[in-house]
Amino acid sequence: MPNSLFTDRLAAAMEAADSLICVGLDPQPARTSPDEILRFNTRVIEATAGLVCAYKPQSAFYEVAGDVGWQALKDTIATVRRVAPQAIVVLDAKRNDIGNTAEAYATSAFDWFDADAVTINPYLGGDAVAPFLQRPDRGAFALCRTSNPGAEDLQSLPMADGEPLYLTVAERAREWGEAHHGNLGLVVGATWPDELVQVRARCPEMPILLPGIGAQGGDLEASVEAGVDAHGRGLLVSASRSVIYAGDAEEIRAEASRLRAAANAANLAREPS
Amino acid sequence: MPNSLFTDRLAAAMEAADSLICVGLDPQPARTSPDEILRFNTRVIEATAGLVCAYKPQSAFYEVAGDVGWQALKDTIATVRRVAPQAIVVLDAKRNDIGNTAEAYATSAFDWFDADAVTINPYLGGDAVAPFLQRPDRGAFALCRTSNPGAEDLQSLPMADGEPLYLTVAERAREWGEAHHGNLGLVVGATWPDELVQVRARCPEMPILLPGIGAQGGDLEASVEAGVDAHGRGLLVSASRSVIYAGDAEEIRAEASRLRAAANAANLAREPS
Repeated sequence: MPNSLFTDRLAAAMEAADSLICVGLDPQPARTSPDEILRFNTRVIEATAGLVCAYKPQSAFYEVAGDVGWQALKDTIATVRRVAPQAIVVLDAKRNDIGNTAEAYATSAFDWFDADAVTINPYLGGDAVAPFLQRPDRGAFALCRTSNPGAEDLQSLPMADGEPLYLTVAERAREWGEAHHGNLGLVVGATWPDELVQVRARCPEMPILLPGIGAQGGDLEASVEAGVDAHGRGLLVSASRSVIYAGDAEEIRAEASRLRAAANAANLAREPS
Repeated sequence: MPNSLFTDRLAAAMEAADSLICVGLDPQPARTSPDEILRFNTRVIEATAGLVCAYKPQSAFYEVAGDVGWQALKDTIATVRRVAPQAIVVLDAKRNDIGNTAEAYATSAFDWFDADAVTINPYLGGDAVAPFLQRPDRGAFALCRTSNPGAEDLQSLPMADGEPLYLTVAERAREWGEAHHGNLGLVVGATWPDELVQVRARCPEMPILLPGIGAQGGDLEASVEAGVDAHGRGLLVSASRSVIYAGDAEEIRAEASRLRAAANAANLAREPS
């Protein structure tokens, strides 16, 4: 459905799989050799197809494998199209730059790799984000509050108006997305459920990509409760190593299924807003 | 000199060419086809060798050309090694991510591409920057104040202590670099000479990468005066299209030579600090 709005495509992917779960396709260099990446990912995609709404390959784990990895990233996205055609692909690349450089990154992500969305860094401002939002059927997710301890160094610092930087970023990003096709989302780490509540309150309609979900059901439940939109959607709960290294195909499928059920249960149990 | 400190290598490259000039190897998709990139860059490197201290390929303009571009980026860096061995290579990739993902980006930049330094985005905080600073002979440049109009959206906003965000970033980056090998520099756009003065005052020892120099000598002179360190070094004045699309090899060399002379004249003319 190349002519649909990105937000509609995301909602359709969630409905089709009845799932908020996104699988991070992050082959670890120490565990998966460059030549094995495509086969490794294909097994994961086949095992999880129909259970998840999205796949999120992390560009760094392909780039580190050089030209072989770069091609494996493209082939991985093509494999999602073939095996799990209703899922969307978020290229996790944290790209950004100014002007026509950002345009080149957008073209690379959307045309060469054929990703549906790409993660971007907001630090350069709205004109650097705009090139990623030109196509109604594609989108981007801007970093807002990351899951690492160092996120405190800048993201949680108070601005002159008393707001932490990450909420200022959230507000700006909402404006940037609204000025295009509503196709800008936010990245908020699962390690900060209180901050997720704040972000969702400010940005009721924006898709949120939530990395950092591990094996702990608690985090997942608190995050779903805090992060879904008024329709119980709009949240991509991303899990990577806990799924892709769960074991054989059956164990991978079982872990994805468990996460999907836990997220859906938390979603049903939340207070109606 | 793989065992030297990055800052010593940068100073040696500036001394060897008696130059602050860095050539941005940014082949424009509309003007240079993917198959021509390596030949195009080789001509530029041959024409400017000995006149410049550094080369800065912009990753986006290679990524947009797919696998051919990715390989051309690696081959371009190898060509700098061969043709201009005293120059350093800054991979302009604006990368960053958390934890072992940042490590993978650093490994890609330093091992697969063999870059001496890489540009990074500071928004994720110190623990995400650290993987780029582990090697004494390699370095990174963190975005501080970018040259685009949208830089005002976030970078110039005042923090609670009255400082604009970009100066807070500069101060944090100084601490992050000092905690490693002094191998973290800053990116400050040439369109903001007043801000460059502020950054240099806070960070007297940090290398500064200055993109955005066009054909205007005024910008260059004001930027050199504002940006060099106490030794008249520590500033990489980067020019891209005005050099690489100057014309034939002789015209490319003439333009690089003109920028080098203008920067050196401005450096000699500045007040001793």
